Amino acid sequence: MRYELYYWTGIQGRGEFVRLALEDAGADYRDVAREQGDQAIMPFLRGEHPGALPFAPPFLRAGRQLIAQTANILAFLAPRHGLVPTSATSQTYAMQLQQTISDVVAEAHDTHHPISVEQYYDQQRVEARKRAAAFRSERMPKYLGYFERVLERGDGRHAIGRRHSYVDLSLFQLMSGLEYAFPNTMKGLRRRTTRLRSLSDRVAERPNIAAYLASPRRIPFNEDGIFRHYPELDENQNTSV
Amino acid sequence: MRYELYYWTGIQGRGEFVRLALEDAGADYRDVAREQGDQAIMPFLRGEHPGALPFAPPFLRAGRQLIAQTANILAFLAPRHGLVPTSATSQTYAMQLQQTISDVVAEAHDTHHPISVEQYYDQQRVEARKRAAAFRSERMPKYLGYFERVLERGDGRHAIGRRHSYVDLSLFQLMSGLEYAFPNTMKGLRRRTTRLRSLSDRVAERPNIAAYLASPRRIPFNEDGIFRHYPELDENQNTSV
Repeated sequence: MRYELYYWTGIQGRGEFVRLALEDAGADYRDVAREQGDQAIMPFLRGEHPGALPFAPPFLRAGRQLIAQTANILAFLAPRHGLVPTSATSQTYAMQLQQTISDVVAEAHDTHHPISVEQYYDQQRVEARKRAAAFRSERMPKYLGYFERVLERGDGRHAIGRRHSYVDLSLFQLMSGLEYAFPNTMKGLRRRTTRLRSLSDRVAERPNIAAYLASPRRIPFNEDGIFRHYPELDENQNTSV
Repeated sequence: MRYELYYWTGIQGRGEFVRLALEDAGADYRDVAREQGDQAIMPFLRGEHPGALPFAPPFLRAGRQLIAQTANILAFLAPRHGLVPTSATSQTYAMQLQQTISDVVAEAHDTHHPISVEQYYDQQRVEARKRAAAFRSERMPKYLGYFERVLERGDGRHAIGRRHSYVDLSLFQLMSGLEYAFPNTMKGLRRRTTRLRSLSDRVAERPNIAAYLASPRRIPFNEDGIFRHYPELDENQNTSV
């Protein structure tokens, strides 16, 4: 089956979690808005197509089915491409972890948009500094500490059991995004994220992922996306956490 | 099977979405922290029990399985209790809608905690007014308009197809919470939420839900929960949206 992915052009955003799964699986897919422009997304949001109504991209077309919400798309794709163990218990745990990744991604976004998504960053810079400080000192250590413990409970190398899964791909993306946005903070957290960093390295070396990351299909991080590097929102260079 | 629900005492919070499903289904469950106190939650967060590691409550024990993340718990429970249609496509759509409910619930929370969950509301009142204004004028109409259209695409009375589901229960809880927190704003949105309000009324009249809402098991909304009524965060009485 040839999938159709719909996501805003020009950013990795939430679509990237889906792209990584499709690429790792070697799945056949079109990245529709990158071919046709963002306007290709709009008829679906207006409800002009039958089936599930998406609130926002990313959404995926698989034959006649339309599926939205990042974690939900991944839960749909994973069993079809060997990206999650077959047991129901494992799939439920994978979904739990992926929803927790969605939560921290939303919080990472809100560091630069703590007041309104309809306003520019420049209109909420003062509040962004406060929210980012709380994210760095409270939330990043809490979430990354949690995922580190999740790895510890497994075989130390995988989120789910002893097998590669879409959750590992998403943890790679989470770590990459946080490294881009908050390099100094991540430096301070190095000793507390050894398993996560090893996992990220291993994911980046998977042949399909390495090929993808080196290709023009991988959009660079930038200041229109979810993970943005604004130096004033990161730790000062010489401050350790 | 007797389920064990773990959630912080004293608030409805995210646990309430799970309680409504358990109550509607007439399921046998213990609300453990309400019997034993919040300390009953902590060993699970510390990882002292085998199986899935929860990041936060609510989580559910079902035999030897532990399941966290609200939408994930509901997706686990629903097929076991006739709270979602049996087709995989319907269950995927239900999960998509439930994750979108999780998103708006998180945004409702952030109206009173736009900077940090570790600080009191009083420490972020100025920013809360700004975030709440954006939530009322942009996000509430967008999310509620979306769910209204979801109902329109079905039979007008149910989120998923022509059948009652856990998504309907969660939409009732969302509407109840927003009515509590933002009564004036919700008044201004009355004409744009006719299907959602009818659905809420029908859910409240379901025998098991009516009995639950009238029981001491239903904790009243309060200013420790997710949906809080701070008049300064709502529209002015005489302003219509």
